[in-house]
Amino acid sequence: MTTDATGADVTEQALASLRATADPRLRELLTGLVRHLHDFARETRLTQEEWERAVAFLTATGQACTDTRQEFILLSDVLGLSMLVETVNGDRAPGATESTVLGPFHMTESPVRRLGDDIDLVGGGETCVVSGRVLARDGTPLSGAVIDVWQADDKGYYDVQQPGVQPAGNGRGLFTADAEGSFWFRTCVPAAYPIPTDGPVGGLLRATGRHPYRPAHIHFIATAEGYTPVTTHIFVAGGEYLDSDAVFAVKRSLVHDFAETDDPSLAGKFGVPNPFRLARFDLVLERAV
Amino acid sequence: MTTDATGADVTEQALASLRATADPRLRELLTGLVRHLHDFARETRLTQEEWERAVAFLTATGQACTDTRQEFILLSDVLGLSMLVETVNGDRAPGATESTVLGPFHMTESPVRRLGDDIDLVGGGETCVVSGRVLARDGTPLSGAVIDVWQADDKGYYDVQQPGVQPAGNGRGLFTADAEGSFWFRTCVPAAYPIPTDGPVGGLLRATGRHPYRPAHIHFIATAEGYTPVTTHIFVAGGEYLDSDAVFAVKRSLVHDFAETDDPSLAGKFGVPNPFRLARFDLVLERAV
Repeated sequence: MTTDATGADVTEQALASLRATADPRLRELLTGLVRHLHDFARETRLTQEEWERAVAFLTATGQACTDTRQEFILLSDVLGLSMLVETVNGDRAPGATESTVLGPFHMTESPVRRLGDDIDLVGGGETCVVSGRVLARDGTPLSGAVIDVWQADDKGYYDVQQPGVQPAGNGRGLFTADAEGSFWFRTCVPAAYPIPTDGPVGGLLRATGRHPYRPAHIHFIATAEGYTPVTTHIFVAGGEYLDSDAVFAVKRSLVHDFAETDDPSLAGKFGVPNPFRLARFDLVLERAV
Repeated sequence: MTTDATGADVTEQALASLRATADPRLRELLTGLVRHLHDFARETRLTQEEWERAVAFLTATGQACTDTRQEFILLSDVLGLSMLVETVNGDRAPGATESTVLGPFHMTESPVRRLGDDIDLVGGGETCVVSGRVLARDGTPLSGAVIDVWQADDKGYYDVQQPGVQPAGNGRGLFTADAEGSFWFRTCVPAAYPIPTDGPVGGLLRATGRHPYRPAHIHFIATAEGYTPVTTHIFVAGGEYLDSDAVFAVKRSLVHDFAETDDPSLAGKFGVPNPFRLARFDLVLERAV
Protein backbone atom coordinates (compact mmCIF):
# COMPACT_ATOMS: atom_id res chain seq x y z
CA MET A 1 0.00 0.00 0.00
CA THR A 2 1.01 3.53 -0.70
CA THR A 3 2.18 5.87 2.03
CA ASP A 4 4.86 8.10 0.51
CA ALA A 5 3.80 11.50 -0.87
CA THR A 6 6.73 11.61 -3.36
CA GLY A 7 5.33 8.50 -4.99
CA ALA A 8 8.60 6.60 -4.53
CA ASP A 9 6.70 3.59 -3.22
CA VAL A 10 4.29 3.64 -6.18
CA THR A 11 7.33 3.43 -8.46
CA GLU A 12 8.79 0.65 -6.31
CA GLN A 13 5.54 -1.33 -6.48
CA ALA A 14 5.22 -0.83 -10.25
CA LEU A 15 8.80 -2.01 -10.76
CA ALA A 16 8.27 -4.98 -8.42
CA SER A 17 5.20 -6.01 -10.43
CA LEU A 18 7.44 -6.56 -13.48
CA ARG A 19 9.85 -8.98 -11.82
CA ALA A 20 7.94 -12.11 -12.81
CA THR A 21 8.07 -11.24 -16.52
CA ALA A 22 9.23 -14.42 -18.24
CA ASP A 23 11.02 -12.79 -21.18
CA PRO A 24 14.14 -11.06 -19.80
CA ARG A 25 14.30 -8.52 -22.64
CA LEU A 26 10.65 -7.54 -22.12
CA ARG A 27 11.37 -7.19 -18.39
CA GLU A 28 14.33 -4.92 -19.18
CA LEU A 29 12.29 -2.76 -21.57
CA LEU A 30 9.28 -2.40 -19.26
CA THR A 31 11.51 -1.65 -16.28
CA GLY A 32 13.23 1.13 -18.22
CA LEU A 33 9.86 2.40 -19.42
CA VAL A 34 8.36 2.57 -15.92
CA ARG A 35 11.48 4.26 -14.52
CA HIS A 36 11.50 6.97 -17.19
CA LEU A 37 7.73 7.44 -17.24
CA HIS A 38 7.62 7.87 -13.45
CA ASP A 39 10.69 10.13 -13.39
CA PHE A 40 9.08 12.26 -16.09
CA ALA A 41 5.82 12.64 -14.10
CA ARG A 42 7.69 13.30 -10.85
CA GLU A 43 10.16 15.81 -12.31
CA THR A 44 7.48 17.79 -14.14
CA ARG A 45 4.90 17.35 -11.36
CA LEU A 46 2.48 16.35 -14.08
CA THR A 47 -1.00 17.52 -13.10
CA GLN A 48 -4.19 15.50 -13.28
CA GLU A 49 -5.48 17.76 -16.07
CA GLU A 50 -2.27 17.39 -18.08
CA TRP A 51 -2.46 13.62 -17.64
CA GLU A 52 -6.04 13.71 -18.93
CA ARG A 53 -4.96 15.73 -21.96
CA ALA A 54 -2.14 13.25 -22.61
CA VAL A 55 -4.60 10.32 -22.43
CA ALA A 56 -6.94 12.12 -24.84
CA PHE A 57 -4.03 12.90 -27.20
CA LEU A 58 -2.80 9.29 -27.28
CA THR A 59 -6.33 7.99 -27.75
CA ALA A 60 -6.91 10.36 -30.69
CA THR A 61 -3.55 9.32 -32.15
CA GLY A 62 -4.54 5.66 -32.04
CA GLN A 63 -7.94 6.37 -33.50
CA ALA A 64 -6.44 8.40 -36.38
CA CYS A 65 -4.67 5.22 -37.57
CA THR A 66 -6.19 3.37 -40.52
CA ASP A 67 -5.00 0.85 -43.10
CA THR A 68 -3.30 3.72 -44.92
CA ARG A 69 -2.34 6.09 -42.12
CA GLN A 70 -0.01 5.51 -39.17
CA GLU A 71 -0.28 8.48 -36.78
CA PHE A 72 1.83 6.82 -34.05
CA ILE A 73 4.76 6.44 -36.45
CA LEU A 74 4.26 10.10 -37.33
CA LEU A 75 4.33 10.99 -33.63
CA SER A 76 7.50 8.96 -33.11
CA ASP A 77 8.97 10.69 -36.18
CA VAL A 78 8.32 14.28 -35.06
CA LEU A 79 9.68 13.55 -31.57
CA GLY A 80 12.92 12.31 -33.13
CA LEU A 81 12.40 8.83 -31.68
CA SER A 82 12.24 7.03 -35.04
CA MET A 83 15.51 8.60 -36.17
CA LEU A 84 17.13 7.84 -32.83
CA VAL A 85 16.15 4.17 -33.06
CA GLU A 86 17.56 4.08 -36.59
CA THR A 87 20.75 5.68 -35.35
CA VAL A 88 21.39 3.50 -32.30
CA ASN A 89 20.86 0.41 -34.44
CA GLY A 90 22.66 1.73 -37.49
CA ASP A 91 26.30 1.05 -36.65
CA ARG A 92 27.22 0.63 -40.29
CA ALA A 93 30.71 -0.30 -41.24
CA PRO A 94 32.55 2.37 -43.28
CA GLY A 95 31.29 2.55 -46.83
CA ALA A 96 27.93 0.88 -46.17
CA THR A 97 24.87 2.96 -47.05
CA GLU A 98 23.49 4.74 -43.99
CA SER A 99 19.95 4.05 -42.87
CA THR A 100 17.18 6.48 -42.07
CA VAL A 101 13.57 6.31 -40.92
CA LEU A 102 10.94 4.07 -42.49
CA GLY A 103 8.30 6.79 -42.30
CA PRO A 104 4.53 6.25 -42.14
CA PHE A 105 3.83 5.61 -45.85
CA HIS A 106 5.22 2.11 -46.30
CA MET A 107 1.69 0.83 -45.84
CA THR A 108 1.03 -1.22 -48.97
CA GLU A 109 3.10 -3.75 -50.86
CA SER A 110 4.98 -2.17 -53.71
CA PRO A 111 3.98 -3.66 -57.08
CA VAL A 112 6.59 -5.88 -58.72
CA ARG A 113 8.12 -3.98 -61.65
CA ARG A 114 10.79 -4.59 -64.28
CA LEU A 115 14.02 -2.61 -64.47
CA GLY A 116 13.40 0.54 -66.48
CA ASP A 117 9.68 0.74 -65.67
CA ASP A 118 8.16 4.14 -65.00
CA ILE A 119 6.75 4.29 -61.46
CA ASP A 120 5.12 7.66 -62.21
CA LEU A 121 1.74 6.41 -63.43
CA VAL A 122 0.25 9.90 -63.73
CA GLY A 123 2.80 12.15 -65.44
CA GLY A 124 3.12 15.90 -65.48
CA GLY A 125 6.18 16.11 -63.19
CA GLU A 126 9.80 16.54 -64.09
CA THR A 127 11.10 13.35 -65.72
CA CYS A 128 13.83 11.62 -63.81
CA VAL A 129 15.93 8.49 -64.11
CA VAL A 130 17.24 6.78 -60.98
CA SER A 131 20.10 4.40 -61.57
CA GLY A 132 22.64 2.59 -59.45
CA ARG A 133 23.94 -0.70 -58.18
CA VAL A 134 23.51 -2.80 -55.08
CA LEU A 135 26.98 -3.75 -53.90
CA ALA A 136 28.79 -5.42 -51.05
CA ARG A 137 31.33 -3.24 -49.25
CA ASP A 138 34.16 -4.79 -51.27
CA GLY A 139 32.44 -3.77 -54.49
CA THR A 140 30.97 -7.19 -55.31
CA PRO A 141 27.70 -6.67 -57.24
CA LEU A 142 24.76 -8.25 -55.46
CA SER A 143 22.93 -9.91 -58.29
CA GLY A 144 19.29 -10.54 -57.47
CA ALA A 145 19.12 -7.92 -54.72
CA VAL A 146 15.59 -6.60 -54.22
CA ILE A 147 14.98 -2.85 -54.12
CA ASP A 148 11.69 -1.62 -52.66
CA VAL A 149 11.03 1.98 -53.73
CA TRP A 150 8.33 4.46 -52.70
CA GLN A 151 8.04 8.20 -53.12
CA ALA A 152 5.69 11.17 -53.10
CA ASP A 153 4.65 12.62 -56.46
CA ASP A 154 5.67 16.02 -57.83
CA LYS A 155 2.95 17.66 -55.69
CA GLY A 156 4.23 16.00 -52.50
CA TYR A 157 1.57 13.30 -52.00
CA TYR A 158 1.81 9.53 -51.71
CA ASP A 159 -0.71 7.33 -53.50
CA VAL A 160 -2.27 6.21 -50.19
CA GLN A 161 -3.05 9.82 -49.30
CA GLN A 162 -5.05 10.39 -52.51
CA PRO A 163 -6.98 7.20 -53.23
CA GLY A 164 -9.34 8.89 -55.69
CA VAL A 165 -6.64 10.97 -57.38
CA GLN A 166 -3.61 8.71 -57.72
CA PRO A 167 -3.82 5.07 -58.83
CA ALA A 168 -2.72 2.57 -56.17
CA GLY A 169 0.99 1.80 -56.58
CA ASN A 170 1.82 5.19 -58.04
CA GLY A 171 5.36 6.09 -57.03
CA ARG A 172 6.05 2.53 -55.84
CA GLY A 173 8.00 -0.38 -57.25
CA LEU A 174 9.68 -3.61 -56.22
CA PHE A 175 12.70 -4.15 -58.47
CA THR A 176 15.22 -6.97 -58.76
CA ALA A 177 18.80 -6.03 -59.57
CA ASP A 178 20.36 -7.63 -62.66
CA ALA A 179 23.47 -9.84 -62.85
CA GLU A 180 25.71 -6.79 -62.29
CA GLY A 181 23.65 -5.68 -59.24
CA SER A 182 22.30 -2.80 -61.32
CA PHE A 183 18.87 -1.27 -61.03
CA TRP A 184 17.23 1.63 -62.81
CA PHE A 185 13.76 3.05 -63.17
CA ARG A 186 11.97 6.11 -64.45
CA THR A 187 9.94 8.44 -62.24
CA CYS A 188 9.29 12.11 -61.57
CA VAL A 189 11.36 14.24 -59.22
CA PRO A 190 9.53 14.07 -55.86
CA ALA A 191 8.52 17.31 -54.16
CA ALA A 192 9.16 18.40 -50.59
CA TYR A 193 5.94 17.97 -48.64
CA PRO A 194 4.29 18.56 -45.31
CA ILE A 195 3.63 15.50 -43.18
CA PRO A 196 -0.13 15.12 -42.57
CA THR A 197 -1.24 17.95 -40.28
CA ASP A 198 -4.97 17.21 -40.01
CA GLY A 199 -4.54 14.83 -37.05
CA PRO A 200 -3.23 15.02 -33.47
CA VAL A 201 0.41 15.24 -34.63
CA GLY A 202 -0.45 18.29 -36.73
CA GLY A 203 -1.89 19.89 -33.60
CA LEU A 204 1.36 19.14 -31.77
CA LEU A 205 3.42 20.79 -34.51
CA ARG A 206 1.22 23.90 -34.44
CA ALA A 207 1.46 24.10 -30.64
CA THR A 208 5.25 23.96 -30.89
CA GLY A 209 5.50 26.47 -33.74
CA ARG A 210 7.19 23.95 -36.04
CA HIS A 211 6.77 23.65 -39.81
CA PRO A 212 5.66 20.21 -41.03
CA TYR A 213 7.89 19.92 -44.13
CA ARG A 214 10.18 17.15 -45.20
CA PRO A 215 12.84 17.72 -47.87
CA ALA A 216 12.23 15.91 -51.18
CA HIS A 217 13.35 12.27 -51.10
CA ILE A 218 12.79 8.75 -52.41
CA HIS A 219 12.52 5.81 -49.97
CA PHE A 220 14.47 2.59 -50.45
CA ILE A 221 14.70 -0.76 -48.73
CA ALA A 222 17.44 -2.88 -50.28
CA THR A 223 17.70 -6.57 -49.39
CA ALA A 224 20.05 -9.30 -50.57
CA GLU A 225 20.56 -12.80 -49.28
CA GLY A 226 23.35 -12.99 -46.72
CA TYR A 227 23.36 -9.20 -46.22
CA THR A 228 21.75 -6.87 -43.69
CA PRO A 229 18.88 -4.98 -45.34
CA VAL A 230 19.05 -1.20 -45.35
CA THR A 231 16.03 1.12 -44.98
CA THR A 232 16.96 4.55 -46.22
CA HIS A 233 16.10 7.63 -48.32
CA ILE A 234 17.88 9.42 -51.12
CA PHE A 235 17.39 13.18 -50.69
CA VAL A 236 17.36 15.60 -53.62
CA ALA A 237 20.42 17.88 -53.29
CA GLY A 238 19.74 21.61 -53.23
CA GLY A 239 16.16 21.21 -52.09
CA GLU A 240 14.41 23.12 -49.31
CA TYR A 241 14.23 21.87 -45.69
CA LEU A 242 17.39 19.73 -45.85
CA ASP A 243 18.46 21.47 -42.64
CA SER A 244 15.06 21.44 -40.89
CA ASP A 245 13.44 18.11 -41.77
CA ALA A 246 10.30 17.77 -39.59
CA VAL A 247 11.38 14.22 -38.71
CA PHE A 248 15.17 14.80 -38.35
CA ALA A 249 15.98 12.09 -40.92
CA VAL A 250 18.59 13.77 -43.15
CA LYS A 251 22.12 12.38 -43.19
CA ARG A 252 24.76 14.09 -45.31
CA SER A 253 25.71 10.86 -47.11
CA LEU A 254 22.14 10.40 -48.31
CA VAL A 255 21.91 13.70 -50.22
CA HIS A 256 22.48 13.12 -53.93
CA ASP A 257 22.45 15.22 -57.08
CA PHE A 258 19.48 14.79 -59.32
CA ALA A 259 21.56 16.24 -62.16
CA GLU A 260 20.03 18.20 -65.03
CA THR A 261 21.12 16.05 -67.95
CA ASP A 262 21.12 17.11 -71.60
CA ASP A 263 22.22 14.00 -73.48
CA PRO A 264 19.91 12.83 -76.29
CA SER A 265 21.67 9.50 -76.64
CA LEU A 266 21.41 8.70 -72.93
CA ALA A 267 17.80 9.92 -72.93
CA GLY A 268 17.11 7.57 -75.83
CA LYS A 269 18.73 4.68 -74.00
CA PHE A 270 16.55 5.31 -70.90
CA GLY A 271 13.45 6.02 -73.00
CA VAL A 272 12.84 9.51 -71.62
CA PRO A 273 12.54 12.89 -73.35
CA ASN A 274 15.72 15.01 -73.37
CA PRO A 275 16.69 16.90 -71.17
CA PHE A 276 15.96 14.98 -67.97
CA ARG A 277 17.17 14.67 -64.37
CA LEU A 278 19.51 11.81 -63.49
CA ALA A 279 20.22 10.47 -60.00
CA ARG A 280 23.03 7.94 -59.75
CA PHE A 281 24.11 6.27 -56.52
CA ASP A 282 24.89 2.83 -55.17
CA LEU A 283 23.29 1.02 -52.25
CA VAL A 284 26.04 -0.72 -50.29
CA LEU A 285 25.10 -3.52 -47.90
CA GLU A 286 26.92 -5.13 -45.03
CA ARG A 287 27.30 -8.86 -44.77
CA ALA A 288 24.83 -10.28 -42.22
CA VAL A 289 26.48 -11.47 -39.03
CA MET B 1 21.85 16.88 -40.22
CA THR B 2 22.71 13.76 -38.32
CA THR B 3 26.27 12.53 -38.01
CA ASP B 4 26.64 11.01 -34.54
CA ALA B 5 26.16 7.26 -34.14
CA THR B 6 25.07 7.61 -30.49
CA GLY B 7 22.15 9.72 -31.64
CA ALA B 8 23.15 12.62 -29.36
CA ASP B 9 22.64 15.06 -32.22
CA VAL B 10 19.19 13.64 -33.04
CA THR B 11 18.21 14.33 -29.43
CA GLU B 12 19.74 17.81 -29.66
CA GLN B 13 17.77 18.57 -32.83
CA ALA B 14 14.51 17.23 -31.36
CA LEU B 15 14.99 19.38 -28.24
CA ALA B 16 15.89 22.43 -30.34
CA SER B 17 12.70 21.99 -32.36
CA LEU B 18 10.67 22.59 -29.18
CA ARG B 19 12.23 25.95 -28.31
CA ALA B 20 9.66 28.02 -30.17
CA THR B 21 6.74 26.49 -28.24
CA ALA B 22 4.64 29.48 -27.13
CA ASP B 23 3.24 27.94 -23.93
CA PRO B 24 6.14 27.60 -21.45
CA ARG B 25 4.52 24.71 -19.56
CA LEU B 26 3.95 22.75 -22.78
CA ARG B 27 7.60 23.43 -23.70
CA GLU B 28 8.70 22.10 -20.30
CA LEU B 29 6.56 18.96 -20.61
CA LEU B 30 7.60 18.15 -24.17
CA THR B 31 11.26 18.79 -23.38
CA GLY B 32 11.07 16.36 -20.45
CA LEU B 33 9.21 13.85 -22.60
CA VAL B 34 11.78 13.94 -25.42
CA ARG B 35 14.70 13.66 -22.96
CA HIS B 36 13.22 10.61 -21.22
CA LEU B 37 11.96 8.96 -24.40
CA HIS B 38 15.37 9.31 -26.06
CA ASP B 39 17.26 8.22 -22.94
CA PHE B 40 15.00 5.18 -22.73
CA ALA B 41 15.68 4.20 -26.36
CA ARG B 42 19.41 4.84 -26.02
CA GLU B 43 19.84 3.01 -22.70
CA THR B 44 17.89 -0.04 -23.83
CA ARG B 45 19.24 0.10 -27.40
CA LEU B 46 15.66 -0.32 -28.53
CA THR B 47 15.63 -2.30 -31.76
CA GLN B 48 13.68 -1.49 -34.89
CA GLU B 49 11.51 -4.56 -34.33
CA GLU B 50 10.79 -3.62 -30.71
CA TRP B 51 9.90 -0.09 -31.84
CA GLU B 52 7.49 -1.59 -34.41
CA ARG B 53 5.87 -3.72 -31.69
CA ALA B 54 5.52 -0.66 -29.46
CA VAL B 55 3.86 1.29 -32.29
CA ALA B 56 1.47 -1.61 -32.92
CA PHE B 57 0.70 -1.89 -29.19
CA LEU B 58 -0.06 1.82 -28.80
CA THR B 59 -2.18 1.80 -31.96
CA ALA B 60 -4.20 -1.17 -30.71
CA THR B 61 -4.59 0.55 -27.32
CA GLY B 62 -6.04 3.66 -28.99
CA GLN B 63 -8.30 1.59 -31.18
CA ALA B 64 -9.65 -0.37 -28.20
CA CYS B 65 -11.06 2.88 -26.77
CA THR B 66 -14.78 3.50 -27.19
CA ASP B 67 -17.41 5.68 -25.53
CA THR B 68 -17.48 3.19 -22.66
CA ARG B 69 -13.90 1.89 -22.57
CA GLN B 70 -10.66 3.78 -21.94
CA GLU B 71 -7.74 1.44 -22.61
CA PHE B 72 -5.10 4.20 -22.31
CA ILE B 73 -6.25 4.99 -18.76
CA LEU B 74 -6.03 1.27 -18.07
CA LEU B 75 -2.48 1.22 -19.45
CA SER B 76 -1.53 4.22 -17.32
CA ASP B 77 -3.11 2.46 -14.33
CA VAL B 78 -1.23 -0.85 -14.66
CA LEU B 79 2.09 0.98 -15.16
CA GLY B 80 1.49 2.86 -11.89
CA LEU B 81 1.46 6.21 -13.69
CA SER B 82 -2.11 7.14 -12.73
CA MET B 83 -1.41 6.48 -9.06
CA LEU B 84 1.87 8.39 -9.23
CA VAL B 85 0.13 11.43 -10.76
CA GLU B 86 -2.47 11.23 -7.99
CA THR B 87 0.28 11.01 -5.41
CA VAL B 88 2.49 13.87 -6.63
CA ASN B 89 -0.58 16.12 -6.80
CA GLY B 90 -2.13 14.85 -3.62
CA ASP B 91 -0.27 16.79 -0.94
CA ARG B 92 -3.26 16.71 1.37
CA ALA B 93 -3.10 18.50 4.66
CA PRO B 94 -3.37 16.21 7.70
CA GLY B 95 -6.90 14.91 8.18
CA ALA B 96 -8.05 15.53 4.61
CA THR B 97 -9.28 12.45 2.74
CA GLU B 98 -6.55 10.99 0.55
CA SER B 99 -7.07 10.73 -3.18
CA THR B 100 -6.62 7.74 -5.44
CA VAL B 101 -6.98 6.98 -9.15
CA LEU B 102 -10.04 7.90 -11.21
CA GLY B 103 -9.94 4.57 -13.05
CA PRO B 104 -11.35 3.89 -16.51
CA PHE B 105 -15.04 3.51 -15.63
CA HIS B 106 -16.08 7.10 -14.93
CA MET B 107 -17.35 7.24 -18.49
CA THR B 108 -20.98 8.28 -18.12
CA GLU B 109 -22.69 10.90 -16.00
CA SER B 110 -24.01 9.47 -12.78
CA PRO B 111 -27.79 9.82 -12.49
CA VAL B 112 -28.98 12.40 -9.94
CA ARG B 113 -30.39 10.54 -6.92
CA ARG B 114 -31.91 11.42 -3.56
CA LEU B 115 -30.27 10.58 -0.24
CA GLY B 116 -31.24 7.06 0.74
CA ASP B 117 -31.83 5.86 -2.83
CA ASP B 118 -30.72 2.36 -3.72
CA ILE B 119 -28.08 2.48 -6.49
CA ASP B 120 -28.26 -1.30 -6.89
CA LEU B 121 -30.95 -1.49 -9.57
CA VAL B 122 -30.64 -5.25 -10.03
CA GLY B 123 -30.51 -6.86 -6.59
CA GLY B 124 -29.20 -10.24 -5.52
CA GLY B 125 -26.06 -8.99 -3.80
CA GLU B 126 -25.37 -8.41 -0.14
CA THR B 127 -27.33 -5.37 1.02
CA CYS B 128 -25.23 -2.52 2.24
CA VAL B 129 -25.71 1.00 3.55
CA VAL B 130 -23.04 3.64 2.95
CA SER B 131 -23.27 6.62 5.24
CA GLY B 132 -21.09 9.56 6.15
CA ARG B 133 -20.54 13.28 6.06
CA VAL B 134 -18.64 15.71 3.88
CA LEU B 135 -16.63 17.94 6.19
CA ALA B 136 -14.01 20.65 6.19
CA ARG B 137 -10.81 19.82 8.07
CA ASP B 138 -12.04 21.73 11.11
CA GLY B 139 -15.18 19.59 11.22
CA THR B 140 -17.52 22.12 9.60
CA PRO B 141 -20.22 20.20 7.70
CA LEU B 142 -20.23 21.08 4.01
CA SER B 143 -23.92 21.46 3.32
CA GLY B 144 -24.74 21.03 -0.37
CA ALA B 145 -21.55 19.13 -1.17
CA VAL B 146 -21.98 16.87 -4.21
CA ILE B 147 -20.93 13.21 -4.02
CA ASP B 148 -20.45 11.31 -7.28
CA VAL B 149 -20.46 7.56 -6.64
CA TRP B 150 -19.78 4.61 -8.94
CA GLN B 151 -19.05 0.97 -8.25
CA ALA B 152 -18.96 -2.53 -9.68
CA ASP B 153 -21.80 -4.88 -8.82
CA ASP B 154 -21.57 -7.98 -6.62
CA LYS B 155 -20.18 -9.93 -9.60
CA GLY B 156 -17.44 -7.34 -10.22
CA TYR B 157 -18.81 -5.61 -13.32
CA TYR B 158 -19.67 -1.97 -14.01
CA ASP B 159 -22.85 -1.11 -15.90
CA VAL B 160 -20.89 0.10 -18.95
CA GLN B 161 -19.25 -3.31 -19.26
CA GLN B 162 -22.58 -5.12 -19.47
CA PRO B 163 -24.95 -2.94 -21.52
CA GLY B 164 -27.42 -5.75 -22.16
CA VAL B 165 -27.27 -7.16 -18.62
CA GLN B 166 -27.18 -4.17 -16.26
CA PRO B 167 -29.39 -1.10 -16.71
CA ALA B 168 -27.46 2.12 -17.45
CA GLY B 169 -26.71 3.93 -14.19
CA ASN B 170 -26.61 0.76 -12.12
CA GLY B 171 -24.15 1.27 -9.29
CA ARG B 172 -23.96 5.03 -9.94
CA GLY B 173 -25.43 8.06 -8.22
CA LEU B 174 -24.95 11.79 -7.88
CA PHE B 175 -25.98 12.81 -4.36
CA THR B 176 -26.22 16.18 -2.61
CA ALA B 177 -25.34 16.28 1.08
CA ASP B 178 -27.97 17.64 3.45
CA ALA B 179 -27.71 20.64 5.82
CA GLU B 180 -25.42 18.63 8.14
CA GLY B 181 -23.15 17.57 5.26
CA SER B 182 -24.55 14.05 5.58
CA PHE B 183 -25.05 11.59 2.75
CA TRP B 184 -26.28 8.03 2.69
CA PHE B 185 -27.40 5.52 0.11
CA ARG B 186 -28.22 1.86 -0.27
CA THR B 187 -26.28 -0.49 -2.52
CA CYS B 188 -24.76 -3.97 -2.63
CA VAL B 189 -21.26 -4.79 -1.41
CA PRO B 190 -19.07 -4.55 -4.50
CA ALA B 191 -16.91 -7.51 -5.49
CA ALA B 192 -13.20 -7.57 -6.27
CA TYR B 193 -12.81 -7.82 -10.03
CA PRO B 194 -10.30 -8.20 -12.82
CA ILE B 195 -9.66 -5.14 -14.95
CA PRO B 196 -10.62 -5.86 -18.59
CA THR B 197 -8.12 -8.36 -20.00
CA ASP B 198 -9.47 -8.80 -23.51
CA GLY B 199 -7.49 -5.85 -24.91
CA PRO B 200 -3.82 -4.87 -25.31
CA VAL B 201 -3.43 -4.15 -21.57
CA GLY B 202 -4.61 -7.69 -20.77
CA GLY B 203 -1.88 -8.97 -23.08
CA LEU B 204 0.67 -6.88 -21.19
CA LEU B 205 -0.47 -8.31 -17.84
CA ARG B 206 -0.21 -11.88 -19.18
CA ALA B 207 3.28 -11.20 -20.57
CA THR B 208 4.40 -9.90 -17.17
CA GLY B 209 2.81 -12.74 -15.19
CA ARG B 210 0.58 -10.36 -13.23
CA HIS B 211 -2.95 -10.99 -12.01
CA PRO B 212 -5.53 -8.40 -13.15
CA TYR B 213 -7.50 -8.07 -9.90
CA ARG B 214 -8.51 -4.98 -7.99
CA PRO B 215 -9.69 -5.23 -4.37
CA ALA B 216 -13.38 -4.42 -3.83
CA HIS B 217 -14.05 -0.68 -3.65
CA ILE B 218 -16.53 2.13 -4.27
CA HIS B 219 -15.44 5.25 -6.19
CA PHE B 220 -16.17 8.76 -4.94
CA ILE B 221 -15.64 12.29 -6.20
CA ALA B 222 -16.66 14.81 -3.54
CA THR B 223 -16.97 18.49 -4.46
CA ALA B 224 -18.03 21.53 -2.46
CA GLU B 225 -17.81 25.21 -3.32
CA GLY B 226 -14.63 26.79 -2.02
CA TYR B 227 -12.97 23.39 -1.46
CA THR B 228 -10.60 21.24 -3.50
CA PRO B 229 -12.50 18.23 -4.89
CA VAL B 230 -11.24 14.78 -3.97
CA THR B 231 -11.27 11.75 -6.28
CA THR B 232 -10.94 8.61 -4.22
CA HIS B 233 -12.11 5.07 -3.42
CA ILE B 234 -13.34 3.41 -0.27
CA PHE B 235 -11.94 -0.14 -0.09
CA VAL B 236 -13.74 -2.99 1.66
CA ALA B 237 -11.62 -4.03 4.65
CA GLY B 238 -10.62 -7.68 4.79
CA GLY B 239 -11.06 -8.26 1.07
CA GLU B 240 -8.67 -10.00 -1.28
CA TYR B 241 -5.96 -8.17 -3.27
CA LEU B 242 -5.63 -5.22 -0.89
CA ASP B 243 -1.87 -5.82 -1.01
CA SER B 244 -1.59 -6.51 -4.74
CA ASP B 245 -4.01 -4.14 -6.46
CA ALA B 246 -3.35 -4.37 -10.22
CA VAL B 247 -3.31 -0.57 -10.40
CA PHE B 248 -1.44 0.18 -7.10
CA ALA B 249 -4.26 2.41 -5.83
CA VAL B 250 -4.73 1.24 -2.23
CA LYS B 251 -3.92 3.64 0.60
CA ARG B 252 -4.26 2.48 4.19
CA SER B 253 -6.52 5.39 5.15
CA LEU B 254 -9.01 4.45 2.44
CA VAL B 255 -9.72 0.93 3.75
CA HIS B 256 -12.95 0.88 5.78
CA ASP B 257 -15.03 -1.70 7.55
CA PHE B 258 -18.22 -2.73 5.85
CA ALA B 259 -19.50 -3.97 9.23
CA GLU B 260 -21.93 -6.87 9.54
CA THR B 261 -24.78 -5.12 11.35
CA ASP B 262 -27.62 -6.86 13.17
CA ASP B 263 -29.87 -4.01 14.30
CA PRO B 264 -33.55 -4.26 13.29
CA SER B 265 -34.29 -0.69 14.31
CA LEU B 266 -31.38 0.74 12.27
CA ALA B 267 -32.30 -1.54 9.36
CA GLY B 268 -35.83 -0.20 9.54
CA LYS B 269 -34.57 3.38 9.55
CA PHE B 270 -32.45 2.73 6.43
CA GLY B 271 -35.18 0.68 4.79
CA VAL B 272 -33.10 -2.48 4.37
CA PRO B 273 -33.63 -6.07 5.55
CA ASN B 274 -31.83 -7.00 8.78
CA PRO B 275 -28.95 -7.98 9.08
CA PHE B 276 -27.01 -5.80 6.61
CA ARG B 277 -23.51 -4.37 6.01
CA LEU B 278 -22.82 -0.82 7.09
CA ALA B 279 -19.92 1.38 5.91
CA ARG B 280 -19.49 4.67 7.74
CA PHE B 281 -16.79 7.21 6.92
CA ASP B 282 -16.42 10.93 6.29
CA LEU B 283 -15.02 12.69 3.25
CA VAL B 284 -12.86 15.57 4.44
CA LEU B 285 -12.00 18.33 1.98
CA GLU B 286 -9.33 21.01 1.99
CA ARG B 287 -10.16 24.62 1.41
CA ALA B 288 -9.28 25.66 -2.16
CA VAL B 289 -6.25 27.95 -2.37
